[in-house]
Amino acid sequence: MLLCDIGNTSFHFCDGQDSYKKSVKDFDPKTLQEEVFYICVNPQIKTLLEPLSNWRDLSRFIDYTNYYPSMGIDRIIACESVENGIIIDAGSAITVDIVKEGVFSGGYIYPGTEAMQKCYQNISSALEYSFNYELDLDIMPKNSQDAITYGFLKPLQSEVRSHQMNLYLTGGDAKKIAKIFPDAHIDEALLFYGMKKIIQRANLC
Amino acid sequence: MLLCDIGNTSFHFCDGQDSYKKSVKDFDPKTLQEEVFYICVNPQIKTLLEPLSNWRDLSRFIDYTNYYPSMGIDRIIACESVENGIIIDAGSAITVDIVKEGVFSGGYIYPGTEAMQKCYQNISSALEYSFNYELDLDIMPKNSQDAITYGFLKPLQSEVRSHQMNLYLTGGDAKKIAKIFPDAHIDEALLFYGMKKIIQRANLC
Repeated sequence: MLLCDIGNTSFHFCDGQDSYKKSVKDFDPKTLQEEVFYICVNPQIKTLLEPLSNWRDLSRFIDYTNYYPSMGIDRIIACESVENGIIIDAGSAITVDIVKEGVFSGGYIYPGTEAMQKCYQNISSALEYSFNYELDLDIMPKNSQDAITYGFLKPLQSEVRSHQMNLYLTGGDAKKIAKIFPDAHIDEALLFYGMKKIIQRANLC
Repeated sequence: MLLCDIGNTSFHFCDGQDSYKKSVKDFDPKTLQEEVFYICVNPQIKTLLEPLSNWRDLSRFIDYTNYYPSMGIDRIIACESVENGIIIDAGSAITVDIVKEGVFSGGYIYPGTEAMQKCYQNISSALEYSFNYELDLDIMPKNSQDAITYGFLKPLQSEVRSHQMNLYLTGGDAKKIAKIFPDAHIDEALLFYGMKKIIQRANLC
């Protein structure tokens, strides 16, 4: 059994033990013969997979009662993987979702690291600095690079901490922002746990 | 005596009682004969004003000891206007500065309302919503518009509240974000108070 989390840039596979990525540009899903359970936020790839009977879309087996219609399937699956906690998925956006007693209780969207960097650049060329992820957020900044780094990271940290819940950190940029959440469980395979849960609950194998 | 705060888009005048704006595009500073004390973040206008003897640049009379070299003169003057507190200046960027016992103790830069709106749009067309400033930030969002609104406003609110200090709110977008800071002193003339302080301290009139 193969699991696959398909994003805008890559197919992220998990064969039970190891995980590996294939680029959306190069990889042809027809070349796989075995059964693949997948989730997909990429509309073009989704259309491509529909006629392939060995590719099984896990989004069909979700109970959507507690989620909202435009919520991404990746956020939903991440929520399914946790019983109590906050899940931060750091990608092109940073999604922050709360699950209490296995039920999604809401979440929000903060800009991702690259998007925020560009945002500051677009405000003024005087703010064209890369973020300093080593910054001590307990000290108020006194230079421009620190001022935008703090502006990006500290408000997010303050909001997340205010919930006083267990924190799960996943996504491509998880390691970048891990320093501001030293108590977080960092797990890039979080979505795969959620997918396995759905498969078991729906008796799919 | 006329005071003038010059930004990228306008000359903001204060004649002691009333304040009014003139567009940078239309207004010719040579047409004014009376003495004007000004601060200016616009490099082109700054060059234009240098040869005019009745336009007096207040940035020359600041004690920069506690500030940092690339810090905008508008932020510095706002800090000069307050003895103890947090100053939020909501413009193209939202600057958040802390003053304790009359001394600047650091500050940071958060994206302004328009910049953040564009930032979300650039991440995904699925996030092309305008912010809902009426949103109740005590409830976790369950739709996309609320998810980006909360993502923009709540982290900022959490960080600012964590300092537990008096809050002064100024800048063109002060009214937009005022709802999330119900205890703030909203004062669009904050910079003018700072300018008057500098004038008095330097015995300029």
